[in-house]
Amino acid sequence: MKKEVTAYAPASVSNVASGFDIMGFALDGPGDKVTVRCTDSPGVRIAKITGCSSPLPLEPERNTAGPPVIAVLKRCNSRQGVEIEVHKGLPLGSGIGSSAASAVAAAVAANALLDAGLSCDDLLACSVEGEKVASGAVHVDNLAPCLMGGFVLIRGYMPIDVVRIPVPRSLHCAIVRPHIEIKTKETRKLLPPSVSLCDVIAQTGNAAGLIAGLMSEDFGLIGRSLQDFIAEPVRKSLIPGFDEMKEAALNAGALGCSISGSGPSVFALASSFESAQSAAQAMADVLKRLNCQHSVIVSGINRTGARIID
Amino acid sequence: MKKEVTAYAPASVSNVASGFDIMGFALDGPGDKVTVRCTDSPGVRIAKITGCSSPLPLEPERNTAGPPVIAVLKRCNSRQGVEIEVHKGLPLGSGIGSSAASAVAAAVAANALLDAGLSCDDLLACSVEGEKVASGAVHVDNLAPCLMGGFVLIRGYMPIDVVRIPVPRSLHCAIVRPHIEIKTKETRKLLPPSVSLCDVIAQTGNAAGLIAGLMSEDFGLIGRSLQDFIAEPVRKSLIPGFDEMKEAALNAGALGCSISGSGPSVFALASSFESAQSAAQAMADVLKRLNCQHSVIVSGINRTGARIID
Repeated sequence: MKKEVTAYAPASVSNVASGFDIMGFALDGPGDKVTVRCTDSPGVRIAKITGCSSPLPLEPERNTAGPPVIAVLKRCNSRQGVEIEVHKGLPLGSGIGSSAASAVAAAVAANALLDAGLSCDDLLACSVEGEKVASGAVHVDNLAPCLMGGFVLIRGYMPIDVVRIPVPRSLHCAIVRPHIEIKTKETRKLLPPSVSLCDVIAQTGNAAGLIAGLMSEDFGLIGRSLQDFIAEPVRKSLIPGFDEMKEAALNAGALGCSISGSGPSVFALASSFESAQSAAQAMADVLKRLNCQHSVIVSGINRTGARIID
Repeated sequence: MKKEVTAYAPASVSNVASGFDIMGFALDGPGDKVTVRCTDSPGVRIAKITGCSSPLPLEPERNTAGPPVIAVLKRCNSRQGVEIEVHKGLPLGSGIGSSAASAVAAAVAANALLDAGLSCDDLLACSVEGEKVASGAVHVDNLAPCLMGGFVLIRGYMPIDVVRIPVPRSLHCAIVRPHIEIKTKETRKLLPPSVSLCDVIAQTGNAAGLIAGLMSEDFGLIGRSLQDFIAEPVRKSLIPGFDEMKEAALNAGALGCSISGSGPSVFALASSFESAQSAAQAMADVLKRLNCQHSVIVSGINRTGARIID
């Protein structure tokens, strides 16, 4: 058995406009790293958290990295003591899957440390335990792409049914993150308890259209389908300059633009790296004019997901 | 200019479970035929309707075949007098696109008669005028597949955005039609004005999954995605033996089963002709036990749609 393993898990965009609660994709670049190591004393403890400005709980049950490790131990009936170090590369409450990345990296690292040989479905189930701590509910539209890479559809939740969707090679994403924090739990309260039949038909048409567009590499169809009738209308008011950013991204040639996860990050999809870069610049310019501090990511679709690193 | 033209338009299945109001496909075999001929006297008149047991209105504005012909004349600024004969091959109020077939056949025939050269989008718009007479609303999930053939997604209604979805060659459909009539206008009143967020997420996941399954020829995914959380739960009570038929179809190997259009026809999709035949037989056996008269269709997906016939 190994003594110590570190895993990396990438940032991800969930919701994806018409894919509210059912779609997500992984990003290249930024991510969280979780190191797990065997200890002589039993139990799971979090030894250190780095890269995070606001304090995160060290109790393993209250930190998103703890429950996935406990779940992996449980699945292989192990009483091995494990110490966890979390190296946050993703800001909290930013809408790019920060808690999902910690949960997934923890599950993947523990799986390797214990030679547990868990399947992808098992690792996802273990990661869910971490995400529950963060959002209070079972959502896998960040977890699944973070774990597996690529663009994924959550066909159903009972049971969880994850479908990998092939996407055009040249598809790129621009993310602009205003430096404010939004808690997923809070933004869920804004959601309507029910949706008018008319909006349901529009939402399902667009969700189905987005999948068709991605699979047939039809960028026009992808663009027309990136419309959200459920979350964006009620959540956008929490994001400074959202409407202006969206308009700027579309004018700069983006296919579509919406809220990443539950915000405040805003994403735009584009048919090339250059087009994504232009959209990112145009969105960032809006926040600059508003004197709102922000960060920018321009990325392809990460096709590998979480992985063990040395 | 031709003196007389006859067009055929096929039966079609709309709604397609998770594709409520946004998906449909055309069937091989039964369909309506519409003959149009030039007359010396101006105006549009319906000369004859055959193949229909209950009387249909002969006023061109009140028969689904009339307004499409008037719309085609309008689009080519023609004052040509036209006489229409409608040969119903599809029973009224049966849920397999009877009114759509008459409307589409009329538009296609008039387009050829007048050498109007209308595009597919234009022909669809003209056909919509006929469907409005039947259902009182703009629905194109029967019209579009009936006109174009194949499996279609209506991505959006404002404006109408029709996407042709490639489907597996071996996909077949079983239709069992209890000999009772259901009026689309009446069944729409049963629909809920709004849908719980939870059901919306389930419906969008399944609609997106159905498209992914069809495009990737993943029969398992197609089957798991054929679930309707909107119309089937409230409309199925109008169909004798619906639950038993569905269970029988699935037990016989069908991928999924739901209401065709607004019923009373029930459709099942299957991965082969043989499997569709078994499902049809199993569903028909249920209606036999209930002493309910019925008809059966087993068909592939019609890929050509409406066409001019001699």
